[in-house]
Amino acid sequence: MHRHFEDELQQLKDRLVHMGALAEQMIDLAIRSLVERRGDRHPRVFEIEHEVNDLHIEMDERVISLIALRQPVAADLRFLIMSSKLAGELERIADQAVNICQNTAELLKQPLLKPLIDIPLMADAARRMLREGLDAFVRRDPALAQRILDEDDVVDSFKDQIFRELLTYMMSDPGTIARALSLILISRNLERVADHATNIAEEVIYLAQGRDVRHHHEEARLREPRTPP
Amino acid sequence: MHRHFEDELQQLKDRLVHMGALAEQMIDLAIRSLVERRGDRHPRVFEIEHEVNDLHIEMDERVISLIALRQPVAADLRFLIMSSKLAGELERIADQAVNICQNTAELLKQPLLKPLIDIPLMADAARRMLREGLDAFVRRDPALAQRILDEDDVVDSFKDQIFRELLTYMMSDPGTIARALSLILISRNLERVADHATNIAEEVIYLAQGRDVRHHHEEARLREPRTPP
Repeated sequence: MHRHFEDELQQLKDRLVHMGALAEQMIDLAIRSLVERRGDRHPRVFEIEHEVNDLHIEMDERVISLIALRQPVAADLRFLIMSSKLAGELERIADQAVNICQNTAELLKQPLLKPLIDIPLMADAARRMLREGLDAFVRRDPALAQRILDEDDVVDSFKDQIFRELLTYMMSDPGTIARALSLILISRNLERVADHATNIAEEVIYLAQGRDVRHHHEEARLREPRTPP
Repeated sequence: MHRHFEDELQQLKDRLVHMGALAEQMIDLAIRSLVERRGDRHPRVFEIEHEVNDLHIEMDERVISLIALRQPVAADLRFLIMSSKLAGELERIADQAVNICQNTAELLKQPLLKPLIDIPLMADAARRMLREGLDAFVRRDPALAQRILDEDDVVDSFKDQIFRELLTYMMSDPGTIARALSLILISRNLERVADHATNIAEEVIYLAQGRDVRHHHEEARLREPRTPP
């Protein structure tokens, strides 16, 4: 019986990792559609999103039935509730990939505004945070999770830099405003991917150390000097 | 013993409603600071956010200890897990109020761009969705929750309308770009408040009817014609 429960927890973990890999693939495809100007990649992203949504529902059902059947306590219970939250974060990351495709579809109606450099780098950073978040979860590695919290600052710097650069385009030529706005929105989508990865990292630290870092990180941010919106 | 568990569930519900009222108050204060151009309201918003963060941690602890101690099954178990998710949604709404304050602080550095009409209306709609979401949760009223899903379309229309109007300002006078962008970002903050209220409504329907509407609503949206970003 105990052995069986361990297997069930392992299965749950495997499904989450699979879900994470799908979400990462979606971000990758969405950003490649932007960089390569290939809207024909979008249907595949929407297809994977359905898969992620189905997995989210499946995960919630598994967690609820495992708690009901096994009545776990302490660490196992926390792990199960955390798994349910993680599935929610991954599903929201998948939503952001869809949003990137939608913003990209707008952009592809018009000529290229400028060669894209920072956005692909920002996407790499956000995807790395996601991958590391899942690694930290699988290995229960709070030190790795802690590093992810620091990487979030890199993503925020990209966001500010992209914003400032595009603002100069808009100011000097109003004909670029719509396209610049779409790119700014895509950088916001990536920022939210990084935020969800940060949430995953905070849950890992919470689970591993039994201390709640979830809001301390935010508080530190609020104390920092104001950056552009 | 059973009686006692009922009381504990009621307490949990009361804490969530209190948390919801705080989140609503934060949105109200943030939008009033924008409309009345009063940045001196912001410290109060940040204060309430700490309270909401503390409640979020408290809710998670309560849910975990109730599941561990009471080992509930079926409806009670779903209700507890849902409560934990709801607390997460409310905490994210509070984050959006803080973001509105930050975007407003940028705006207050410059003269008024235009009298604000749609943003306060959009904020009213989003706050109503939040309030109704909590009502639907307390009364376990899936019909009310269903109406909230429809109201989300109203908020989305506001978002599109605000975007189009501000685009015309930016196109005709580049000097307005920074301010127009801040207002667009505030409308995005409100859109996310409405999204979180929608998540709450979907959870209520899920709990009441045992069917998962969470992703069907999104799918319906994806099928709709593309609106501006």
